[in-house]
Amino acid sequence: MKQSKALIQTLREVPRDADVVSQQLMMRSGMIMKLAAGIYDYLPLALRSIRKFEQIVREELAKDGCQELLMPTVQPAELWQESTRWSFYGKELLRFKDRKDADFCLGPTHEEVITDIVRRNVRSYKQLPMNLFQVQTKFRDEIRPRFGLMRGREFIMKDGYSFHVDDADADRGYWEMFNAYKRIFSRLGVKFRPVEADSGAIGGSFTHEFHVLAGSGEDGILSCDACEYTSNVEKTEAPRVDPVDHGAAFPLRPAHFQTPGVTAMEEQAAAFKDAEHDGMPLHQTSKVYWLEAEILTPGEAEPSRRIAVAAILRGDHELNPVKVKNAVGAADLQPMPDAEDFCGAPAGFLGPIPRPGTRHAALHADPKDRLVYLVDRSLEGAVNLTCGANEAPGHHFGFDPKRDLPMARYADLRLAQEGDLCPRCGKGRYQAFRGIEVGQVFKLGTKYSKSMNCVFVDEQGKERPMVMGCYGIGITRTIAACIEQNYDADGIVWPWPVAPYQIHLLDLDPGSAEVRGTAEKLEAGLEAAGFEVLHDDREGMSPGAKFKDADLLGFPLRVMVGSKGLKDGVVELKDRRTKEVRKVAPEALVAEVIAARDRILADLAVQGGR
Amino acid sequence: MKQSKALIQTLREVPRDADVVSQQLMMRSGMIMKLAAGIYDYLPLALRSIRKFEQIVREELAKDGCQELLMPTVQPAELWQESTRWSFYGKELLRFKDRKDADFCLGPTHEEVITDIVRRNVRSYKQLPMNLFQVQTKFRDEIRPRFGLMRGREFIMKDGYSFHVDDADADRGYWEMFNAYKRIFSRLGVKFRPVEADSGAIGGSFTHEFHVLAGSGEDGILSCDACEYTSNVEKTEAPRVDPVDHGAAFPLRPAHFQTPGVTAMEEQAAAFKDAEHDGMPLHQTSKVYWLEAEILTPGEAEPSRRIAVAAILRGDHELNPVKVKNAVGAADLQPMPDAEDFCGAPAGFLGPIPRPGTRHAALHADPKDRLVYLVDRSLEGAVNLTCGANEAPGHHFGFDPKRDLPMARYADLRLAQEGDLCPRCGKGRYQAFRGIEVGQVFKLGTKYSKSMNCVFVDEQGKERPMVMGCYGIGITRTIAACIEQNYDADGIVWPWPVAPYQIHLLDLDPGSAEVRGTAEKLEAGLEAAGFEVLHDDREGMSPGAKFKDADLLGFPLRVMVGSKGLKDGVVELKDRRTKEVRKVAPEALVAEVIAARDRILADLAVQGGR
Repeated sequence: MKQSKALIQTLREVPRDADVVSQQLMMRSGMIMKLAAGIYDYLPLALRSIRKFEQIVREELAKDGCQELLMPTVQPAELWQESTRWSFYGKELLRFKDRKDADFCLGPTHEEVITDIVRRNVRSYKQLPMNLFQVQTKFRDEIRPRFGLMRGREFIMKDGYSFHVDDADADRGYWEMFNAYKRIFSRLGVKFRPVEADSGAIGGSFTHEFHVLAGSGEDGILSCDACEYTSNVEKTEAPRVDPVDHGAAFPLRPAHFQTPGVTAMEEQAAAFKDAEHDGMPLHQTSKVYWLEAEILTPGEAEPSRRIAVAAILRGDHELNPVKVKNAVGAADLQPMPDAEDFCGAPAGFLGPIPRPGTRHAALHADPKDRLVYLVDRSLEGAVNLTCGANEAPGHHFGFDPKRDLPMARYADLRLAQEGDLCPRCGKGRYQAFRGIEVGQVFKLGTKYSKSMNCVFVDEQGKERPMVMGCYGIGITRTIAACIEQNYDADGIVWPWPVAPYQIHLLDLDPGSAEVRGTAEKLEAGLEAAGFEVLHDDREGMSPGAKFKDADLLGFPLRVMVGSKGLKDGVVELKDRRTKEVRKVAPEALVAEVIAARDRILADLAVQGGR
Repeated sequence: MKQSKALIQTLREVPRDADVVSQQLMMRSGMIMKLAAGIYDYLPLALRSIRKFEQIVREELAKDGCQELLMPTVQPAELWQESTRWSFYGKELLRFKDRKDADFCLGPTHEEVITDIVRRNVRSYKQLPMNLFQVQTKFRDEIRPRFGLMRGREFIMKDGYSFHVDDADADRGYWEMFNAYKRIFSRLGVKFRPVEADSGAIGGSFTHEFHVLAGSGEDGILSCDACEYTSNVEKTEAPRVDPVDHGAAFPLRPAHFQTPGVTAMEEQAAAFKDAEHDGMPLHQTSKVYWLEAEILTPGEAEPSRRIAVAAILRGDHELNPVKVKNAVGAADLQPMPDAEDFCGAPAGFLGPIPRPGTRHAALHADPKDRLVYLVDRSLEGAVNLTCGANEAPGHHFGFDPKRDLPMARYADLRLAQEGDLCPRCGKGRYQAFRGIEVGQVFKLGTKYSKSMNCVFVDEQGKERPMVMGCYGIGITRTIAACIEQNYDADGIVWPWPVAPYQIHLLDLDPGSAEVRGTAEKLEAGLEAAGFEVLHDDREGMSPGAKFKDADLLGFPLRVMVGSKGLKDGVVELKDRRTKEVRKVAPEALVAEVIAARDRILADLAVQGGR
């Protein structure tokens, strides 16, 4: 391909509205253009990378007998009403009416449609298991689309769904896809991790996310340095810390410590002073998070209700809201918006023990399903703690959760941290990584097959719901993640398997017939050997400007053809990643490129392996 | 692929809501499923055909240096407002608001987006010409979606756009794509025709449609049997018929013929009797079509206005409304809804000459831009005609368009017909075909580049608007059209290049270890030779039921493995189209299949050529 005729417009400046490296580099290298918030044109360079990755995905899924189909983008409301998601899916589901005033949505995901297809086509256990997938443009109306292809509204996704006769076969299918995903991301040649992740509140389900590791990743990952346990920090089990011995329990001393104007935990602890104490160790303090949880009750007139949740942790521990959400089975969780009014005290002095006359006190007297106390399991058995007094500027002393809140439930509520002892093996410690989630395997169970009556007839002639799994890969997001992991100050450093072109051939002196002729011949020779070549034949540009563009575009190998080199009978071959340059006779170039390709792929195999 | 695990559910019955053969056969063979009106799931068999055709399209376009990109499905209103199509595009444009209340639409076509891309990326004449395309899912909210994939709402389309420095290069680019399309449809192996078509009212534009020939086609095509002229009947030039000599002109004889209760043209003509006439030859009668045209006036407060049009033809000629539309430059044309009130007479007696006191008379006295008389050119110079008297039940006699309607314009208004003399060569006669429009090449000119300011800097440093072309292929529609042309009473007869699988291997006795073993071996051997095989390994089905399914699915070659044949050391190889069966030793099967494939492809080359 001749660059002079290619739709590749490079930019020197970083576009003003580009927030992250991949977005900046993709816009600067002419790969993508913003059409609207979260909506991008994929220009020819980007599409080449996308198609290459799609092909890797298809090849690996074919090995496991997955069948490709293509479902509609526009979906009728009826199916979503059947699964009850029409009510429960938030505003990310873009809904609209067609010209006949019928309700439709743009598919953000296709569980309903695939379940409909399978229930209408599959009847017998003999046809199962079945694994179906599609590669498709999807739309999610994100409230804050950002980071280019990392969190767009319109994006390309591979979504797959499997159907099984029972739980055991669904588990087998799950691990089959888990391994297919490992092969896919290994072939991509990027550093990645499969991590255990939160599966929300669906019973019987579990899930792994696949993360491309990158410092800019939105997700925290903790990985044990001794065993295999790797998980999203949202999900990571925190080790139970045995309570420190704070002596024999004494009765609660109401509003014992006065700390006017001091609200930060550490400062309060330091200010807790009396005859016996000059400051309090953090492990003897407690704090409460007042939260409001939304509990779904599908099929009822009131589809959801809100309850109050008090989450009580040690002063030096941090809350993991996902754990609270799961502990109470909430669809949504947020800080209680009117917590100060609820407790009758200003922020900084809120506590778990009610102050008479408040809404808290009223609910506390008759909590039913409307108020839940959760205590982190590291406080199980702890006594003589401090806690907010629900009365400014005081703190109680002598708080004993078991005694003072006998109705409280104990659970793992806190955020695990780097350096924590791994509770799985009990030997290693957590190491922290940042990751970009690019794939997910999810065991769905019978959530959709039950609500949509997707059943099969088993060997005994009995109807049973199929057990399902679903498996996604963000195709466009993965391409962006490749760049987040592989770039330098000059531009992109493409992994070979998804580079738009493998070779950038620079004609450094198009005015010279000899240079031009040699470049043409090398382009033809490399293409004949099966390589993809972008030939920078542009006139009126300095070699320096061409080098800058080539660095920015970042194809793995660069061939430079100039008058000076040709006088010495050589062209130059440069490796974008190592920056190593070799002088090569034009006749030997194809052989050298093959050797360089093999070296690069061997390196990738090592890197992609883990 | 084992059929027992494949998502292929065949139906014996014709689905109730399937109107045309391709839709019936695609639904019966488990290729597509209806999700909503005009919205279909493409199941694995259909997707295989679709992808094969897409690949043919990509390969042929690559030969002309076309670059593939991918534009968004969801498009912001702003661009459509710039091109003014936001107001003018009808309800087929599905519009909606996102969560932030901004206006968007689902792209039915991408002229605006591609023009935006090019104006932001291309500055210099050196970068032109540029030809860009995408293969994409599009949405048009058809008022009456029907015929399965033939007129769906969601469909896959290849849309391409070219940009040129001037008209001459745009013409060159147009013919380049015209030839690419000929190669594409030739490779598909179907009978097709490129036909001249109507380009609407855009100045400087012209267009060809590519039609797959099929008796069920919605479009009429007329093709000269002597020269190359082939055109959509909407556009086909009708030969000018010299008026028959009806003697010296005499004055108009108002309401001369009374034909109470008779309104059909032929019957009226027969009833036209007086002292000299016992019935009137049809060539001496005239009829008027009263129409209402919508004229667009972009950029004005009233974007459109409606005018009255009287189209006057010889009694035995039929109106071509597209010609009227173009003659008056209308965006839309329909029968005048209140024509009887307008003329002051009942249907059957309406005429071109106003009756006093009517709205017609008032407008006739001062027509300005509000009333246009058009007379078909075959009536130019005709005299002594009959015409409706605008007064029931009478007809005038002696109508002379030149004398009685001096303000009338003359044009080709009539529908050409099979057997008409070709006006291009003056020798041949028109032959009629039915066609399914599957592709279109269109010279757009500067419509979009001017309204959206898509300019380049020419060699003299002057800014000029680019000259554009656009080029579409309905991918999913073409697959349906292949079936409309290639089927028989038993099912589909796939053209080899887009058959979902090339070979259907039937195990007629899966209970026999020998048959099963041979079938497995043949499947592996054929796949190793590069063939795509669907292996019907289903148990508990009679050979007859398998034959029926195989006929329905219609892959080009069928291999039948049964106990009886194996006793004689043979399997059977059947050609779906010719029904020819050969007995072949299993060891010789691959060679026989290769020979059969070559025969089929040689036949296709002959057939696809024209």
